[in-house]
Amino acid sequence: MKKLINNPEHVVEEMLEGMVAAFPGYVRKLEGFNVIVRADAPIKGKVGLVSGGGSGHEPSHAGFVGKGMLDAGVAGAVFTSPTPDQIFEAVKAVDGGAGVLLIIKNYTGDVMNFEMAGEMAEMEGIKVAKVVVNDDVAVENSTYTTGRRGIAGTVFVHKIAGAKAQAGGTLEEVKTVAEKVIANVRSMGMALTPCVVPAAGKPTFTLAEDEMEIGMGIHGEPGTMRTKIMKADEIVEHLMSKILTDLPYKPGDEVAVMINGLGATPIMEQFIMNNKVNKILKEKGIKVHRTYIGEYMTSLEMAGASITLLKLDEELKNLLDAPADTPAFRQF
Amino acid sequence: MKKLINNPEHVVEEMLEGMVAAFPGYVRKLEGFNVIVRADAPIKGKVGLVSGGGSGHEPSHAGFVGKGMLDAGVAGAVFTSPTPDQIFEAVKAVDGGAGVLLIIKNYTGDVMNFEMAGEMAEMEGIKVAKVVVNDDVAVENSTYTTGRRGIAGTVFVHKIAGAKAQAGGTLEEVKTVAEKVIANVRSMGMALTPCVVPAAGKPTFTLAEDEMEIGMGIHGEPGTMRTKIMKADEIVEHLMSKILTDLPYKPGDEVAVMINGLGATPIMEQFIMNNKVNKILKEKGIKVHRTYIGEYMTSLEMAGASITLLKLDEELKNLLDAPADTPAFRQF
Repeated sequence: MKKLINNPEHVVEEMLEGMVAAFPGYVRKLEGFNVIVRADAPIKGKVGLVSGGGSGHEPSHAGFVGKGMLDAGVAGAVFTSPTPDQIFEAVKAVDGGAGVLLIIKNYTGDVMNFEMAGEMAEMEGIKVAKVVVNDDVAVENSTYTTGRRGIAGTVFVHKIAGAKAQAGGTLEEVKTVAEKVIANVRSMGMALTPCVVPAAGKPTFTLAEDEMEIGMGIHGEPGTMRTKIMKADEIVEHLMSKILTDLPYKPGDEVAVMINGLGATPIMEQFIMNNKVNKILKEKGIKVHRTYIGEYMTSLEMAGASITLLKLDEELKNLLDAPADTPAFRQF
Repeated sequence: MKKLINNPEHVVEEMLEGMVAAFPGYVRKLEGFNVIVRADAPIKGKVGLVSGGGSGHEPSHAGFVGKGMLDAGVAGAVFTSPTPDQIFEAVKAVDGGAGVLLIIKNYTGDVMNFEMAGEMAEMEGIKVAKVVVNDDVAVENSTYTTGRRGIAGTVFVHKIAGAKAQAGGTLEEVKTVAEKVIANVRSMGMALTPCVVPAAGKPTFTLAEDEMEIGMGIHGEPGTMRTKIMKADEIVEHLMSKILTDLPYKPGDEVAVMINGLGATPIMEQFIMNNKVNKILKEKGIKVHRTYIGEYMTSLEMAGASITLLKLDEELKNLLDAPADTPAFRQF
């Protein structure tokens, strides 16, 4: 295991401390909990947005805490759901009286623990709503999931629901637009190499030197196909064919594109993928409204990438275009 | 070789096309040349900033083309200096009548080719000035370098000179402040794994499963020490001791910090490094004005990171704080 760490048991805490040290104007850590909240939380009258999950997917989710996105990011142990207690603390810390929306990726542990935290908060009189993101078109049901997995498309939920909350939307309105994003966002990924959970010290799966895996999950859950390495254009064609056929698309439709590096994929390669994504969309007459390229939801040092398309209407476009200012997502 | 590419010979061109497809509002590619310029270049009356070098260091340099930073990024073949012709085209494309500053990393080929391009431009009546960045404290002279190498600290030169040019500085003023950054910026890096140049298909160097290299260059040039993997805190202590003793520092001084991932280093590990950087600075009474964490100057899929400190005065602070809006560097 080659890692820049001190002790596998302290990686999450040290990471969060290093993050707060880097961005004290943006975020602070809740005393005694691995929870990052906006420096100015709670914001009176604004709906609070709480997301989170296992660590190892940085900058998700704490990197998206800031103006126009999340109010709190809850960090579980690596690839392990945060506890209900932790999530409950996050909800209490960001509730400004207008209620709190929980944005949950569809993993059984996350769903269960966020729901439990929501119930704890409601017993204290905090209004709570939740949405569950399941954008990964690769597989139905999986190692840790009933139904589809939630992956990088979750970041579009953070962005758009965050903009709605920032603009003064009510809890019901913020939840409704988050659900609209979920209904219109689809992703799929592939990996060239596995990743290594620090406490385990060995790869989550193995791939031969000439193999790749299509459709695997962000914790190394099995995908749809293990095959010889293909060219970037062939890989993109395969992923895009799955993504584009999962929703009805017609010429003139508009999308936001996200090419998400999983941790060890050179930016060069992410741009090469985007080149093919654009050609495919152009052929189909689908217009690209905005493109995001980089690391948004990683899997430690996994080499690989996912593609996300979000189908847009005017409301989603306006909210996507709104400014955001967080450690890992800034847009004028 | 595990890469998301199509043909090793076309990686640079396909990458640049994918970049322009992603950020058409920011940048365009010069027809027939691997040069990225601001979409609105040339800007009348503004000093133009041109940087570049071999590809494989993305987002450097084209990712920093945009308002408040560069006007052009010139992309050579992977780890290969761009040609004088290419650089000359970039200079012509961004000269708005106020002259052009060339920001060169200190590699023999880069220096020679940028200088030649500068002479070509001057023969056409364009005012040209140049600065050479040599922030890497690891070694004097190296595989491709006489003197110290230029690495991630170069991005601070882009940012601060870019802010000065955006604010209407003259060529002489922009050059002077760029030189002030160079005088005050120091970096050093380390690697856990090598990278693979696509056309070569094999690693630039080899490291055993329990080894790391300290002070290597961003093309895999030899460093100062090959050793067993150390803890993150020990690595940071070593790098910081070299960086902090290369300039006089006293309590009360202010710095900007950059933790730069070299390509395959999880963001988690970059934050863990920053945690220790902050502790060391705190002990010495040095104040952190701003921190940048992420991939700024990579080495394809190399695992490792560099630390950069920029010693600040009021002028540098103000210019660093100015807004910037580029594909890979955005700041309100």
